[in-house]
Amino acid sequence: MTTPDGVTTSAAFPIPPRMTAWVLDGPGELRRTEKPVPVPGRAEVLLRIDAVAICPSDIDNIWYGWPAIVDGGPPFHKEWTPGHEYMGTVVALGPAVDEFSIGDRVAVEIHAGCGQCRRCRAGLYTACLNYGNRAKGHRANGFTTDGGFCEYQVNHVNTMARLSDDISDELGTLVVTAGTAMYALTEIGGLVAGESLVVIGEGPIGLFVAAVGKALGASPVVVTGLSPQRLAIAAGLGADHAIDVRGAEGRDVDAVAAVKAIVGPHGADYVVECSGAPVAIGQAIAMASRGGRVCLAAFPAEATNVDVGRLVRDNIALFGIRGEGKRAVHRACALMRDKKFDARPLLTHTFALDDLPTALLYAKEKRDGAIKVVVKPRGVAAGQVAAE
Amino acid sequence: MTTPDGVTTSAAFPIPPRMTAWVLDGPGELRRTEKPVPVPGRAEVLLRIDAVAICPSDIDNIWYGWPAIVDGGPPFHKEWTPGHEYMGTVVALGPAVDEFSIGDRVAVEIHAGCGQCRRCRAGLYTACLNYGNRAKGHRANGFTTDGGFCEYQVNHVNTMARLSDDISDELGTLVVTAGTAMYALTEIGGLVAGESLVVIGEGPIGLFVAAVGKALGASPVVVTGLSPQRLAIAAGLGADHAIDVRGAEGRDVDAVAAVKAIVGPHGADYVVECSGAPVAIGQAIAMASRGGRVCLAAFPAEATNVDVGRLVRDNIALFGIRGEGKRAVHRACALMRDKKFDARPLLTHTFALDDLPTALLYAKEKRDGAIKVVVKPRGVAAGQVAAE
Amino acid sequence: MTTPDGVTTSAAFPIPPRMTAWVLDGPGELRRTEKPVPVPGRAEVLLRIDAVAICPSDIDNIWYGWPAIVDGGPPFHKEWTPGHEYMGTVVALGPAVDEFSIGDRVAVEIHAGCGQCRRCRAGLYTACLNYGNRAKGHRANGFTTDGGFCEYQVNHVNTMARLSDDISDELGTLVVTAGTAMYALTEIGGLVAGESLVVIGEGPIGLFVAAVGKALGASPVVVTGLSPQRLAIAAGLGADHAIDVRGAEGRDVDAVAAVKAIVGPHGADYVVECSGAPVAIGQAIAMASRGGRVCLAAFPAEATNVDVGRLVRDNIALFGIRGEGKRAVHRACALMRDKKFDARPLLTHTFALDDLPTALLYAKEKRDGAIKVVVKPRGVAAGQVAAE
Amino acid sequence: MTTPDGVTTSAAFPIPPRMTAWVLDGPGELRRTEKPVPVPGRAEVLLRIDAVAICPSDIDNIWYGWPAIVDGGPPFHKEWTPGHEYMGTVVALGPAVDEFSIGDRVAVEIHAGCGQCRRCRAGLYTACLNYGNRAKGHRANGFTTDGGFCEYQVNHVNTMARLSDDISDELGTLVVTAGTAMYALTEIGGLVAGESLVVIGEGPIGLFVAAVGKALGASPVVVTGLSPQRLAIAAGLGADHAIDVRGAEGRDVDAVAAVKAIVGPHGADYVVECSGAPVAIGQAIAMASRGGRVCLAAFPAEATNVDVGRLVRDNIALFGIRGEGKRAVHRACALMRDKKFDARPLLTHTFALDDLPTALLYAKEKRDGAIKVVVKPRGVAAGQVAAE
Repeated sequence: MTTPDGVTTSAAFPIPPRMTAWVLDGPGELRRTEKPVPVPGRAEVLLRIDAVAICPSDIDNIWYGWPAIVDGGPPFHKEWTPGHEYMGTVVALGPAVDEFSIGDRVAVEIHAGCGQCRRCRAGLYTACLNYGNRAKGHRANGFTTDGGFCEYQVNHVNTMARLSDDISDELGTLVVTAGTAMYALTEIGGLVAGESLVVIGEGPIGLFVAAVGKALGASPVVVTGLSPQRLAIAAGLGADHAIDVRGAEGRDVDAVAAVKAIVGPHGADYVVECSGAPVAIGQAIAMASRGGRVCLAAFPAEATNVDVGRLVRDNIALFGIRGEGKRAVHRACALMRDKKFDARPLLTHTFALDDLPTALLYAKEKRDGAIKVVVKPRGVAAGQVAAE
Repeated sequence: MTTPDGVTTSAAFPIPPRMTAWVLDGPGELRRTEKPVPVPGRAEVLLRIDAVAICPSDIDNIWYGWPAIVDGGPPFHKEWTPGHEYMGTVVALGPAVDEFSIGDRVAVEIHAGCGQCRRCRAGLYTACLNYGNRAKGHRANGFTTDGGFCEYQVNHVNTMARLSDDISDELGTLVVTAGTAMYALTEIGGLVAGESLVVIGEGPIGLFVAAVGKALGASPVVVTGLSPQRLAIAAGLGADHAIDVRGAEGRDVDAVAAVKAIVGPHGADYVVECSGAPVAIGQAIAMASRGGRVCLAAFPAEATNVDVGRLVRDNIALFGIRGEGKRAVHRACALMRDKKFDARPLLTHTFALDDLPTALLYAKEKRDGAIKVVVKPRGVAAGQVAAE
Repeated sequence: MTTPDGVTTSAAFPIPPRMTAWVLDGPGELRRTEKPVPVPGRAEVLLRIDAVAICPSDIDNIWYGWPAIVDGGPPFHKEWTPGHEYMGTVVALGPAVDEFSIGDRVAVEIHAGCGQCRRCRAGLYTACLNYGNRAKGHRANGFTTDGGFCEYQVNHVNTMARLSDDISDELGTLVVTAGTAMYALTEIGGLVAGESLVVIGEGPIGLFVAAVGKALGASPVVVTGLSPQRLAIAAGLGADHAIDVRGAEGRDVDAVAAVKAIVGPHGADYVVECSGAPVAIGQAIAMASRGGRVCLAAFPAEATNVDVGRLVRDNIALFGIRGEGKRAVHRACALMRDKKFDARPLLTHTFALDDLPTALLYAKEKRDGAIKVVVKPRGVAAGQVAAE
Repeated sequence: MTTPDGVTTSAAFPIPPRMTAWVLDGPGELRRTEKPVPVPGRAEVLLRIDAVAICPSDIDNIWYGWPAIVDGGPPFHKEWTPGHEYMGTVVALGPAVDEFSIGDRVAVEIHAGCGQCRRCRAGLYTACLNYGNRAKGHRANGFTTDGGFCEYQVNHVNTMARLSDDISDELGTLVVTAGTAMYALTEIGGLVAGESLVVIGEGPIGLFVAAVGKALGASPVVVTGLSPQRLAIAAGLGADHAIDVRGAEGRDVDAVAAVKAIVGPHGADYVVECSGAPVAIGQAIAMASRGGRVCLAAFPAEATNVDVGRLVRDNIALFGIRGEGKRAVHRACALMRDKKFDARPLLTHTFALDDLPTALLYAKEKRDGAIKVVVKPRGVAAGQVAAE
């Protein structure tokens, strides 16, 4: 069926006019309401959202209005729907779409660039010079435009990666996080096989950097962190060494020395900082070898003292990344499809979409060992907690 | 003629057994003495030094023992000869050399890597993992080994670039500085034609980054600095805009705003920081556009507050470089041979080698508008000051 | 003024409803007719065409129906307007355009990619996987869509580069050719400064490869060709050596030997084949050094015998390019704006648009030493021939 | 213990003055003789050879004197020892070696570049401009210098990769072949995860390209070949599809159509040609998508008809490679250490070194399903055939 707008739909996936959606009234104040189901544009599809994971930046957005910038300001507009780590089923196709079919299950990237600026044209669409400019075609779902804590959302065809049947809905929500990890490795060199890789921080992105790095042949892969539970997961995902920097008997470990004891006195070829701790920037630089490369995938809220001299004396390059880019999500999705690592241990809790406020608290407070908390619009009874 | 060591010499360039050389006794204390003329090894040549320029890092080495590391420590050994920006004439060839002939005039690179570590094998010999390890073949003349404030020095064939006849001795000493500028541009992207380039700092390296960047087509090229005299030279070397950040009437200019008024509100594609001022790191990052690249070619002595969040949010990459690398000196030499820019205005003073202490004071104190001060072992009478 | 379609226009540039346009009836049969002035879409502008150059591929399109593919077949549809090397003035803006203003003078790229395929997203829009698919947004003006032998044409904002006032209309038509040359050098390495470059063929693209290569510092630059007139222009554009392969006294020169006598026995770092002669492929490979790179910017109509073994034994890479890509036109335009070379000697003839058939014959038959023949819709009297 | 030459040895590995070595008298005529055990130079080690695999190029060298070039000519000098796919144990260290210890088990790369030419300095040591020039330090063991069909050989430290204990001697001989596969993928792009890869030819290199490509995340990986036995091994190594181009019922399969049926009508992102069949060059180009990349890792003996127009029209790049490069052997070794694929099914036969002539016939004639045939100086009784 084709609508007058040129949108193709199918009787197999009837689309209601309105849907349930959560909106943000004020800091920490989510309200369940109804919105019209959005209509896909020229190169967009409509997705029926099947599952959404909660990302630490959702917490930042919802409680602190940051880093989301909706209509150029903080997102407490009483109309904005957060959420960006989702997957779903294609239910309608914009007029210029033949890359996907109705019924396809897909994971998403967050950023659709404008396609007109020099960054987008080089594949750096997370650095789009028209960031936040909807008229130019930019979308960052769940940041600058409505996101995934609802039943349907539109996505540009450039932001989708097809999921194979054996990847569950919950696992599919993690593809975008894996994509960020892939992009970090892409930017610092890409050919990591046989090179040493250190990951600072054992949050979801750190864990995925370790997993993707190992899948691509980095050797050894070392993760430093604070949580024994998560470091055990890092080892399961392929890290050769997981260092608990809290150490035994309450004495902190010298993380730089511990890493060099493993990778050798020159330091590591690649370091990816995923903790956002102010001290970690200095550690990352100190752990890198001459000519090494450091990727910052997280950051402290305030300016930080950096040993710039080390960068210059020792030819070290520092790359900041925001999210994915260069089709890294597509690449990461291929690794997951081929079972290069098993990310299921990160999936600790699943809630119904109606229980979003509770789900957010689990994620925010790391209740009950929560790592990745997922909400689903269908198939999970309200009040029920499920792990995969 | 071939010596028993397999070294080839020529009657046209007789080599004495001993030579005049300056050595460093203590901070700021240079002493003129004699040393044996060194003997070139397997892939090395002996150069008769014809001219040596004074670099700011020579001042650091001689007065503060830094960044030179001779035999693993500060250079006040009473035997070490500083100086690294020299040119000369090939007068003897090691046994495995056929790349050069006796009589060739050459400029030099500072760093000969070990050729065995993974950095050297990727062309990053300024980041050699055996830095300072003479047994492995590493040399950084004038930093970790004897340099150019003398009459003869050995150089690895990898560290030399042939000079055409129409490049004077004095101009030839600047090739290595131009090479550092070229390397800065190489590392941040290389294809600078049509991209905007901002250079912070109007010292010799900053001036050459502007000149080389313009020669390679960067557009516009903006230089910020403090000295009207040098900013005028920047314009002569090709900079499209030279901003005096001291401004008129004693009011400092907002350098970031001034740059963005020229390159546009998104900021510049490439920024090269050459001033070493602590405030400049932050300026450099603020001047870069989303997805932009910043090269640090100088650095403050102490750790500096850096807005790491900007790097991450806006996908900015920061490259530290030490000297040249990837045959950048060779590339820069080609630009000078083809007269892509005229660096002669940087040559402000020439002294006899015997007057090295006076020459150093001119450079250190920027006496008489000194920019590049050159000393020559021959052809300049003691006590005489000459500009080209 | 804004039309109901969201298109912005200006009283300063009134747009008529219809325009003069040449269409192609059959091989070699052009007919002057009228067409409606096209309307720019979302990210497009309307250009008033001020000048169009004739490219050898226009001749191929018009006489042989090739390489143009209009509506999936040969272009003898009696409705198609050829011509692709044009420049003009922006007279209307599509709804999502703020990159340009009405009144801007611009040169154009030929290819607007779909922006949705993996090639476009990497900047390789001349290799768009939706080539020729207008519904997906692909346009190759003058190849798959209407071109420039008329008074107005629409162009995607991604395909335009602003011209400075001191570049004449005629010179502005050459920017796209310079862009193809720039792209050739980009693809084979980009950092050509100080590397040897050989150009085979002294047609417009070959001449521009020499000019752009020299502007970027390649050294030496050698051009081989058949026409003394054009080889003299090559030298004027910066080539260090121009070899007439016809030689003196009717004896052909061994081009490979002649090139190696200049660049050295190992051969050249980079070779760009621009002649399309079958023999030239083999020459290009033979002229390249071990680890060298060869770009093919032209090609013979039929499959050609290639010494594949040389490619494998000596690690040689061969790049085929079609037109521009990676914003190379923008980069080339910057070089022309900065007067890095003077392309005016290529401009041999200018005709009125009404005299297009005559102009084409001048270009096709190289009448009167024709190199670049330009037609202009305004300002040139019919029947008049003008060089710049 | 240190010899007067500065070579370090150990009582644990006593080194005899002479050793058994095979030398080549004439085409196909190997003779067992004795040679002095060679002495390692400055940055070299002496290896006790523990196992050597037979490569198709050994057959070419021994029967046709090609591609080996010993002392600048064909290798029938009655003194040259062929063999290049070996592994062994470090038994002596040259004076500048601290990267390895006596007792280390190592796999080898073939090529030690001169370290002085511009190719070596960029990591392209298989394209060394001083290829075959021993005085410059170039070695290609088993091609231009003595190889591995003997008991001891010297290797430059740059040519060795440490083997973990759980890699058998026989498996260790395959590391260099895996390194060639890794280099092929490196040269055509490196970031193959999520991209389609087609391998033409199911010889050892083709099988390893499939294995390494899959390990790095290429998806799908398609192998085309003629031998059902080997195609089954390809599948075991990770190929998603293995196409028998002989087809059923004696009818040849259209390989290009069969590949496109799998990877889609645009063709594959990457194609690696490993068969050397003249028809395969054309197939490889036809299988590649617009903007795709083709690597030639084998080649027919004679010049071949190539559709150069396809390369140009569709922006396809063709890379020839000879052996490894850019430390690819080191990277491949890391993948094997991490058990990313199991290459043991390629190891079909093992003989004593004394039975080299028989072993060569097995390899040459593919007797008894031979794929990789290994000879060992110790531990295998003469006349005995062993698979791992």
